[in-house]
Amino acid sequence: MKLKIAVLPGDGIGPEVTAQAVKVLKAIAQEFDHSFQFKYASAGAVAIDETGDPLPKETLDVCKATDAILFGAIGDPKYDNNPDAQVRPEQGLLKLRKELGLYANIRPVKAYDTLLDKSPLKKQFIKGTDICIYRELTGGIYFGEKTLSEDGNTASDLCVYSRSEIERITHLAFKSAQSRKRKVTLVDKANVLESSRLWRKVVTEISQEYKDVKLDYLFVDNAAMQIILNPKQFDVILTENMFGDIISDEASVIGGSIGLLASASVGDYFAMFEPIHGSYPQAKDLGIANPIASILSAAMLLDHFELYEEAELIREGVERSLKLNITTPDLNTKFNHISTTKVGDFIEDFI
Amino acid sequence: MKLKIAVLPGDGIGPEVTAQAVKVLKAIAQEFDHSFQFKYASAGAVAIDETGDPLPKETLDVCKATDAILFGAIGDPKYDNNPDAQVRPEQGLLKLRKELGLYANIRPVKAYDTLLDKSPLKKQFIKGTDICIYRELTGGIYFGEKTLSEDGNTASDLCVYSRSEIERITHLAFKSAQSRKRKVTLVDKANVLESSRLWRKVVTEISQEYKDVKLDYLFVDNAAMQIILNPKQFDVILTENMFGDIISDEASVIGGSIGLLASASVGDYFAMFEPIHGSYPQAKDLGIANPIASILSAAMLLDHFELYEEAELIREGVERSLKLNITTPDLNTKFNHISTTKVGDFIEDFI
Ligand SMILES: CC(C)[C@H](C(=O)O)[C@@H](O)C(=O)O
Ligand SMILES: CC(C)[C@H](C(=O)O)[C@@H](O)C(=O)O
Repeated sequence: MKLKIAVLPGDGIGPEVTAQAVKVLKAIAQEFDHSFQFKYASAGAVAIDETGDPLPKETLDVCKATDAILFGAIGDPKYDNNPDAQVRPEQGLLKLRKELGLYANIRPVKAYDTLLDKSPLKKQFIKGTDICIYRELTGGIYFGEKTLSEDGNTASDLCVYSRSEIERITHLAFKSAQSRKRKVTLVDKANVLESSRLWRKVVTEISQEYKDVKLDYLFVDNAAMQIILNPKQFDVILTENMFGDIISDEASVIGGSIGLLASASVGDYFAMFEPIHGSYPQAKDLGIANPIASILSAAMLLDHFELYEEAELIREGVERSLKLNITTPDLNTKFNHISTTKVGDFIEDFI
Repeated sequence: MKLKIAVLPGDGIGPEVTAQAVKVLKAIAQEFDHSFQFKYASAGAVAIDETGDPLPKETLDVCKATDAILFGAIGDPKYDNNPDAQVRPEQGLLKLRKELGLYANIRPVKAYDTLLDKSPLKKQFIKGTDICIYRELTGGIYFGEKTLSEDGNTASDLCVYSRSEIERITHLAFKSAQSRKRKVTLVDKANVLESSRLWRKVVTEISQEYKDVKLDYLFVDNAAMQIILNPKQFDVILTENMFGDIISDEASVIGGSIGLLASASVGDYFAMFEPIHGSYPQAKDLGIANPIASILSAAMLLDHFELYEEAELIREGVERSLKLNITTPDLNTKFNHISTTKVGDFIEDFI
């Protein structure tokens, strides 16, 4: 297969982890006789530094002209505590999601048997956990109108959802549940929010078309508790943008490290693959960033093009590296100094 | 001291747990020669059933005419999955908070040494945790304008904050930190939300008046992770309404049971005390509801009137009951059938 892949390494640890994913994809191409062509482009704080724009038009053009996007991470602390900054790295990511119509962010959360001891949660609570979170990604409070009063003393953000925005991701979530444990849990705050009540209504209607899937409802506050108390009760979690952001980062503790969690952001025309961890600027260039989330994102990319065998081989490589303790310090209590690159090399060699 | 206390037992397990708190307060009154007068009033689904209104004017009048309010819980599943219901129990609670100006919801989270084994989290991660969450309670997306388009296909909720709303709770949070570990962590989503950027700006400004307190910032997605990964890093957490709802329920897992967590909702004129658990309708009248959160809410009520010795005695009674396994089934793996009432009786006797 021939694939053109846009690579947006971004900020902080983005470039170093993405480099490992590219290395692994190249190994796959060689092993399976595919042709993967990589086009690099800049986004985030680095793009602001270079061009003043966190998502230069050129980058967007590269993304639109390729079959899939491999994304690193963006964000830089110099913007975080400056409420007056007019341009922010995150705007680049949000614009990319919006412009490419990536409305569904899919985040699998698994407890790896070899890592059960690494989690802050007790083994018996997490063993066997296998959740897939469907987070709506181009609507809600992230994209609603924002206002700041002229005197700077009142600020607002609007959370809006339309029926069609809810419908399209709901279908994806139910279809995914059909090939899993046949359960969808809708997470909302329907006892307070009008937008959540619309979610509940639309999702309930659509569930009628999937009689083989059970639909459950959970208020987001309760969900935040249940994910820790009893993660095994979940199969597919479906939720809106902001709640999905919170719940999926929270769920990362189950696996023992956020450095393991990959994600796919898909729409009707484009697809992007990225680790869910952020730019982790404190770790930049120290060789301690865990590349596995990025490498597993590459596996999700291959799944997307139905290269299942190839994706599986990457996952086997990852499991092997975890089993042999070829991991970065966030997971490794046995060996010191196994660097980001070494983990990438190991999985490359495995392939 | 003479105190008039409004008692709003509410729905589900509300009445049974509140009855234990009242019993304990009566014991305190007797022991310390105080005069506590209790006035009962209805709110929530029971009030809808009786009057059509989740917060009848009579109830509000009772609340305004008393020194403090002891609240049970509200909510009933028959409203949850009916997106078209015009009247909901939760409206009663929200209106009460708003009408009484209860802008700060204070939720202490502690890991009890005797309960370390009950938590889904490993001991070494939680031992020594002592967090106090300050959640803004009368603003944000809970109270902003809500719309539903005429065709019912688009819904919205507005999240608004003004400088003064942020200022008043921020002062409370910093003052509390001064008598604790001198650290405030602001939880927001300033990389995306305009309202969060206003929070960051105002809180940063106010922090200048409290030079002895360290101010930290955390994005809410990261906070949801950090609370599980390393809860001991926190002292006072300050946050807006919706994030506070999620984060505080999540934090309840640290203590091993949400049935332990009390809260105070305070404003400039009134104060209300309630367990953070909900109405838990499945447990209603089974005698299995944990009354400790309600009893500890009564202790917070006494603190509010500077009856520190009395509050301390309640807390000692609670710790004793935990140590001796005189607890409801959520915490008890040793004895069966210790009921809600038995736990209340034990603490009453202790006093
Ligand atoms: C960087 C930020 C804007 C982003 C989000 O909130 O969506 C990130 O946290 C994520 O989850 O991908
Ligand atoms: C019942 C509900 C409206 C309420 C809230 O969301 O504030 C509850 O969850 C709480 O935290 O007190």
